[in-house]
Amino acid sequence: MTRYDIAIIGTGPAGLEAAITAVVRNKNIILFGSKDLSRKMQVVDHPILNYLGLPSVTGKEMAAAFTKQLEELNISITEEKITTVYAMGDFFGLQTSANEIVEADSVILATGVTAGKPYPGEEKLLGRGVSYCATCDAPLYRGKTVACIGGSAHEEEEADFLGEVCEKVYYFPLYKGDITFHSPNVEVVRERPVEITGGMKTDALVTDQNTWPVSCVFILRDSQFPGQLVPGLETDGNAVKVDLQMATNLPGLFAAGDIAGQPYQYIKSAGQGNVAALSAVNYLAARKRSQQ
Amino acid sequence: MTRYDIAIIGTGPAGLEAAITAVVRNKNIILFGSKDLSRKMQVVDHPILNYLGLPSVTGKEMAAAFTKQLEELNISITEEKITTVYAMGDFFGLQTSANEIVEADSVILATGVTAGKPYPGEEKLLGRGVSYCATCDAPLYRGKTVACIGGSAHEEEEADFLGEVCEKVYYFPLYKGDITFHSPNVEVVRERPVEITGGMKTDALVTDQNTWPVSCVFILRDSQFPGQLVPGLETDGNAVKVDLQMATNLPGLFAAGDIAGQPYQYIKSAGQGNVAALSAVNYLAARKRSQQ
Repeated sequence: MTRYDIAIIGTGPAGLEAAITAVVRNKNIILFGSKDLSRKMQVVDHPILNYLGLPSVTGKEMAAAFTKQLEELNISITEEKITTVYAMGDFFGLQTSANEIVEADSVILATGVTAGKPYPGEEKLLGRGVSYCATCDAPLYRGKTVACIGGSAHEEEEADFLGEVCEKVYYFPLYKGDITFHSPNVEVVRERPVEITGGMKTDALVTDQNTWPVSCVFILRDSQFPGQLVPGLETDGNAVKVDLQMATNLPGLFAAGDIAGQPYQYIKSAGQGNVAALSAVNYLAARKRSQQ
Repeated sequence: MTRYDIAIIGTGPAGLEAAITAVVRNKNIILFGSKDLSRKMQVVDHPILNYLGLPSVTGKEMAAAFTKQLEELNISITEEKITTVYAMGDFFGLQTSANEIVEADSVILATGVTAGKPYPGEEKLLGRGVSYCATCDAPLYRGKTVACIGGSAHEEEEADFLGEVCEKVYYFPLYKGDITFHSPNVEVVRERPVEITGGMKTDALVTDQNTWPVSCVFILRDSQFPGQLVPGLETDGNAVKVDLQMATNLPGLFAAGDIAGQPYQYIKSAGQGNVAALSAVNYLAARKRSQQ
């Protein structure tokens, strides 16, 4: 199995700049994200005025410029969602939504900010009837009734897969628009989830209107809350705690961009991505020296 | 006298991005620096590969792109060197090398990093025979013998002016190349300054070869050490101490770019300039609210 020098999660300006800087410094990287780069960027149709070097561009034009630069440096994007990052001591294991593990010596989190906060009960019941990965955990709930909270239309495929394995899937979309599933077992419920209840394991999803008895609640957000993405990571609200070198409390793990706190600005994210990449490079060099 | 919302010192990527962001946020700014932007940037003739948005540009091309963007936003550059920034409580006074004072409610330091460290005796004798501003302090040494340490050819004009006022000026260039002065009172000395000596006031400049008895040593560096540029500013070596919002220990004073520490990278500087500008905007807004 390839052990990467640096795994970078996120393809907004922070992740892209981190990737470019790491590649210029001859590191073997893997960059997880979307070939569309950032949905948040793609939908900006007013001119962005304050990105030094790109005067008055739309989000699409900015994304096109960034994509061109990645191509020139032969940087490719791996379209896998990372559901959990495990700090294993001297390396990191990144679990993908396809239930594979990717190994890297250091990690840069650049997944953006996740709106809202965890549901009451979510953290307590994680791993005991709360899951962030349908592919990983669906087999545990074969023939059972589960709930699935979908943060965007991108998650419908996962819900459909749950429908193939579970007896019944209640799908709670957090967005508007028509939804149809191939699997007859999936039912769309237009209610707002408010709490997950249970003792040793999950027994129900409570909404603003009803209580739905389920064995598991699959929560498929566009991006995870940082503390749930990386067990053991110190956070402050929705932000990862970082120092000026973008280091977190976990050695070898760095964060940059919106996930590292306000302000939410493209050029600030890019700048932090650069710092995070150089900090990762320094971390790898120091470790190499200490092993000699 | 105009009181500016934000005075920005420096025209590298940090200062430029700060200016752009502040102007987009409708602030009344003054930007001090060079119309060439940054000498350090202008001399880079290998491609810069890791500035997200500007793939593979030379320093000159980067500077041209930045200049164009400033023009589009009608941002002008004031070519005055700032010798001292005084925190006056509820505003700042910026002393120019023409001995004028510019007032601003907040300040962003983006002057880059100054190599080396102060000479022994420099800090102790500042204001008592050590000066950073020929125009300001030359009249105090009319008819006296002084030394002038020049960081670059840009300072020769100042030394020539000293020659018009003082009886004798020993000029110690820190750079190579031919130097001629109009004033017959200025003499070039190719020795390396190592210490400034004196008790209550300066009595001599000591070099690696001689001791030169003088009444004042004018030290004209390209950029000041931050602690000398701003009396009372907390520093750590050559860097200003900042938090993640680019705030210094002085309320209303922010720092960004190389002056805020390593790594020395264009995109990191731009990102920090953005954060510093938004922090200044927030500072001004909070102060306005508290005055209502």
